[in-house]
Amino acid sequence: MKKAVVLLSGGLDSATTLAIAINEGYACHAISFRYGQRHKVELQAAENIAKSLKVTQHKILDIDLGQIGGSALTEMDIPVPENTSEGIPATYVPARNTIFLALALGFAETINAYDIFIGVNAVDYSGYPDCRPEFIKGFTTLANLATRAGVEKGGIHIHAPLIEMTKDQIIKTGTKLGLDYSLTLSCYQPDSQGRACGVCDSCRFRMKGFEAAGINDPTLYQADKYN
Amino acid sequence: MKKAVVLLSGGLDSATTLAIAINEGYACHAISFRYGQRHKVELQAAENIAKSLKVTQHKILDIDLGQIGGSALTEMDIPVPENTSEGIPATYVPARNTIFLALALGFAETINAYDIFIGVNAVDYSGYPDCRPEFIKGFTTLANLATRAGVEKGGIHIHAPLIEMTKDQIIKTGTKLGLDYSLTLSCYQPDSQGRACGVCDSCRFRMKGFEAAGINDPTLYQADKYN
Repeated sequence: MKKAVVLLSGGLDSATTLAIAINEGYACHAISFRYGQRHKVELQAAENIAKSLKVTQHKILDIDLGQIGGSALTEMDIPVPENTSEGIPATYVPARNTIFLALALGFAETINAYDIFIGVNAVDYSGYPDCRPEFIKGFTTLANLATRAGVEKGGIHIHAPLIEMTKDQIIKTGTKLGLDYSLTLSCYQPDSQGRACGVCDSCRFRMKGFEAAGINDPTLYQADKYN
Repeated sequence: MKKAVVLLSGGLDSATTLAIAINEGYACHAISFRYGQRHKVELQAAENIAKSLKVTQHKILDIDLGQIGGSALTEMDIPVPENTSEGIPATYVPARNTIFLALALGFAETINAYDIFIGVNAVDYSGYPDCRPEFIKGFTTLANLATRAGVEKGGIHIHAPLIEMTKDQIIKTGTKLGLDYSLTLSCYQPDSQGRACGVCDSCRFRMKGFEAAGINDPTLYQADKYN
């Protein structure tokens, strides 16, 4: 079985990506990051997904991006916007996907994996520059210049299977593969019990996606407690 | 004054790079990494160099690459080779420069710096793939695709002023700029007092460089205690 490293945040996109990689026959080594995110319960979601999908290994790396700062996701005094906005939003973490892919690349090289899966999506996303096809292409080129695997062996492939999908297509794909979306968490500011806020960018994209897919949204929202 | 982020390991190359960036008029924000390296005393060297060259800021980031493994520099049970060798050596840390540049990029974006200096060198080096001009070019392309600074602003520049220099040219350049090389540490396995082993790859390149430059090597070697 070919090995793959799969970036797994605990969100809907990365969980679907993992389901796709497993369906394609890879032995999946999931990697998650404890990066100082305010929504730390997503790591619990990542663990639950990894277990549910029976990955070969699930590695959680500690890399505190709060040491760098500059984002609403890692700095408690920058508020998470409660609406989608024009341009690159405050939740953008400087160079996050570059950093995560670089670490995934190092990990891949260590375990002799040549395939890396990442759940970036250029359609229903938040305007982050590091979610575009040209970013993935640029990273692939770099990965093959940067590493022993790229230079001495067959080359590194970065797979971004969701990149051209809409959110509802992603949800339909995962549902067909049997993925239990109640295990996933998209919210940037869930409460301590993992209930989603329902108002941040990421919640809004998720809700619209389930609606457009005509699939019941299994997410537990904070407002639900009043219902 | 234009800001620059300068990667500073505490070695000869990065110290020279910092001296060059300062000489070019940049306000320098040095960044070092506590990455689980066996030669941790190099961080003390980095601090001494940063102080001596009066940087604007010196940031030491914690990112334990031992979590990934795969290198003689982060794993105590992989020995450091005592000779230079063909191919990529055991001291190669998987994707290290990609990871370090990615973190420097995030840091640069946070402080609104558009210039990053790195002391990689493609001539007298150890055969690491991530020290070549094409790697630097690839990372520059990626940086401008990956970030808010690249997309919305004037673009990111990665400077590698040593890339085509021989070790003796590097040493002559730093010496002209008044750099005190006794502050720098190149050895992969120094003793607890920061004395160099004199036999690893990195020591050998350094010794040859001083010899070729006709400049006295101020390094304290472990063998010196017997002299």
